[in-house]
Amino acid sequence: MAMPLFHDGLMVHTQSHDYPIVITENSAIKNNSMAKQIAPYIGGRQVLIVTNDTVSPLYLKVLEEELTEQFTVKVCVLPDGEQYKNQTSINQIYDTLMAAHFNRDVTLIALGGGVVGDMTGFAAASFMRGVNFIQIPTTLLSQVDSSVGGKTGINHAQGKNMIGAFWQPQMVLADMSTLKTLPARELSAGLAEVIKYALIMDADFLTWLEANLPAMMALDLAILGEAVKRCCQYKADIVAQDERESGVRALLNFGHTFGHVIETHEGYGNWLHGEAVAAGMVQAAELSQKLGWLTVEEVVRIKRILTLANLPITPPSIDVQTALSLMGHDKKVKHGQIRLILLKSLGEAVLTNDFDAELLTEVLSQHSA
Amino acid sequence: MAMPLFHDGLMVHTQSHDYPIVITENSAIKNNSMAKQIAPYIGGRQVLIVTNDTVSPLYLKVLEEELTEQFTVKVCVLPDGEQYKNQTSINQIYDTLMAAHFNRDVTLIALGGGVVGDMTGFAAASFMRGVNFIQIPTTLLSQVDSSVGGKTGINHAQGKNMIGAFWQPQMVLADMSTLKTLPARELSAGLAEVIKYALIMDADFLTWLEANLPAMMALDLAILGEAVKRCCQYKADIVAQDERESGVRALLNFGHTFGHVIETHEGYGNWLHGEAVAAGMVQAAELSQKLGWLTVEEVVRIKRILTLANLPITPPSIDVQTALSLMGHDKKVKHGQIRLILLKSLGEAVLTNDFDAELLTEVLSQHSA
Repeated sequence: MAMPLFHDGLMVHTQSHDYPIVITENSAIKNNSMAKQIAPYIGGRQVLIVTNDTVSPLYLKVLEEELTEQFTVKVCVLPDGEQYKNQTSINQIYDTLMAAHFNRDVTLIALGGGVVGDMTGFAAASFMRGVNFIQIPTTLLSQVDSSVGGKTGINHAQGKNMIGAFWQPQMVLADMSTLKTLPARELSAGLAEVIKYALIMDADFLTWLEANLPAMMALDLAILGEAVKRCCQYKADIVAQDERESGVRALLNFGHTFGHVIETHEGYGNWLHGEAVAAGMVQAAELSQKLGWLTVEEVVRIKRILTLANLPITPPSIDVQTALSLMGHDKKVKHGQIRLILLKSLGEAVLTNDFDAELLTEVLSQHSA
Repeated sequence: MAMPLFHDGLMVHTQSHDYPIVITENSAIKNNSMAKQIAPYIGGRQVLIVTNDTVSPLYLKVLEEELTEQFTVKVCVLPDGEQYKNQTSINQIYDTLMAAHFNRDVTLIALGGGVVGDMTGFAAASFMRGVNFIQIPTTLLSQVDSSVGGKTGINHAQGKNMIGAFWQPQMVLADMSTLKTLPARELSAGLAEVIKYALIMDADFLTWLEANLPAMMALDLAILGEAVKRCCQYKADIVAQDERESGVRALLNFGHTFGHVIETHEGYGNWLHGEAVAAGMVQAAELSQKLGWLTVEEVVRIKRILTLANLPITPPSIDVQTALSLMGHDKKVKHGQIRLILLKSLGEAVLTNDFDAELLTEVLSQHSA
């Protein structure tokens, strides 16, 4: 039996339970370790694997076969794409569960990126008022962000992630090898979230990234594993402090309020989430600079690393009033005030509504029609 | 200002927070107390009242007007009936929330019976991953059962309450006067759950009910308030021990596995939930008697009080194999075994799969085609 080249991980502490994130390589090969590693976290005899039509040809077969040796396994293959992150897809999961006569013993397994993970998690949170689930994230974005911390959900026609639940997985298995089949554009989208952790939490990690980003983009799995572990640890530390985002957890949304405007305006799926966050982080950094918290050089440094990761640093042209109105739909709005996550310095973020609305308008105007 | 004639209540202790159940009368009269009593439990400035087209002409106007003095109030009126306890109605609530630009500050108010409460609770659990809600139950069934304990959800075409969440309200306001507008058949359906508490928890309460049921059916509000308070206290004690139904809480489902078979087979809405539970409790009692746990006389006593409450004690004709198959869909099934709540004695219930399948078949056969 081939041993995994790299096997590392960490524990996430939440109110409901603690769970491991296992970081590994080459687990999706026959007689290797994907099924073996997750089996101990499956409580009953029933398993539903939820995946999409892009990931299923790559990683489903071995996982399904090996799990079938121990469990009753059903599969739900959803269409790939953010535009399918909706009630119709959730209903497809429910219908599969009901047709299989599965009950509270079932464990759902999310095999795919953030969309699959968010939908599988919400289906798990809501089927029979809550069943277990396991995350096998196959994109960098989901490995460093959405598979950690229990945010699950779907989009509403009028807003992203408007319907959902906080629901923690039993374990997360992040296999770096799956990044080899990830399109380069999606790898870059994941790097946006990696860079985000550096900007909001740790200026030293920014320096590390400036040195190691080329190796990550060349798919050096050990360096990718190191980056994923660091990001998961940053996120786990924050989630342990504030699972339901009543405080510090909101800082993880740096760049996201601006990014949501881009995604909603352009239509889901045209800009990748990470791309919208990248351009949104630049806007948030520009506002921070106008407030005197960042230097012009620091904003240039942020733009440079995003560019190095092949990410956009300029939003599409959006009318200012439209942008402000879309911001009003964001979950971070409190008592009608737009609150934004801004940088007090590189490596330190703050959630604030203490800025001149004129300055926000200035930032939004730079790229408006 | 007219003072309420009766004002009493209790506290429910749950993992997320404690909340009060206030039992009152005549609060839905202008300048009386409904809006005043719930206002302290509304955190933000945004309120969505969810009700149905039967209850809205009775109690909505004053509540809406008085809340509007302090809050931004929107209303979502759903069609009345168990057949509308589905995703379409939930989407109507989401759409109303999105159209109003409401955010995490919103408080949802469920004004109606169990169906309104369950759907409003699930919408609150899932809108923006969870917002606050308040229950104003206007049926006896919801006052003694569904408004307490945080079970929320909707039906799936293949099974009742298959989609949902555990989500606790900020407070429950149970006004006995609302029972004056409740159809007699629905009052009886609520009495089924009241009688259930006596059968599973407290034989003395059964004796109390045998003496007081006529007064309750004649709408003696003080006696009804006393019964509601006792039932809520039984349920609150159980929920405090076992919020997520991993143990003792399952006992509250006495009569429900048999009852679900009746409801599913007959189509939602043809048998009221309480009617199905009544006939289901008789079946569970008959199986308990066959196991030697109840005497024939005790089964007769159960049938007698249900009959006194104008409840059915005989299920409709259902083929045994169909009934067994429908039972297999129930959430109480564990590792493929049908588990039932049975009575070890009057006032003492047990969840068990330790019975001869033949005896279950015998009970089901008594009324099969």
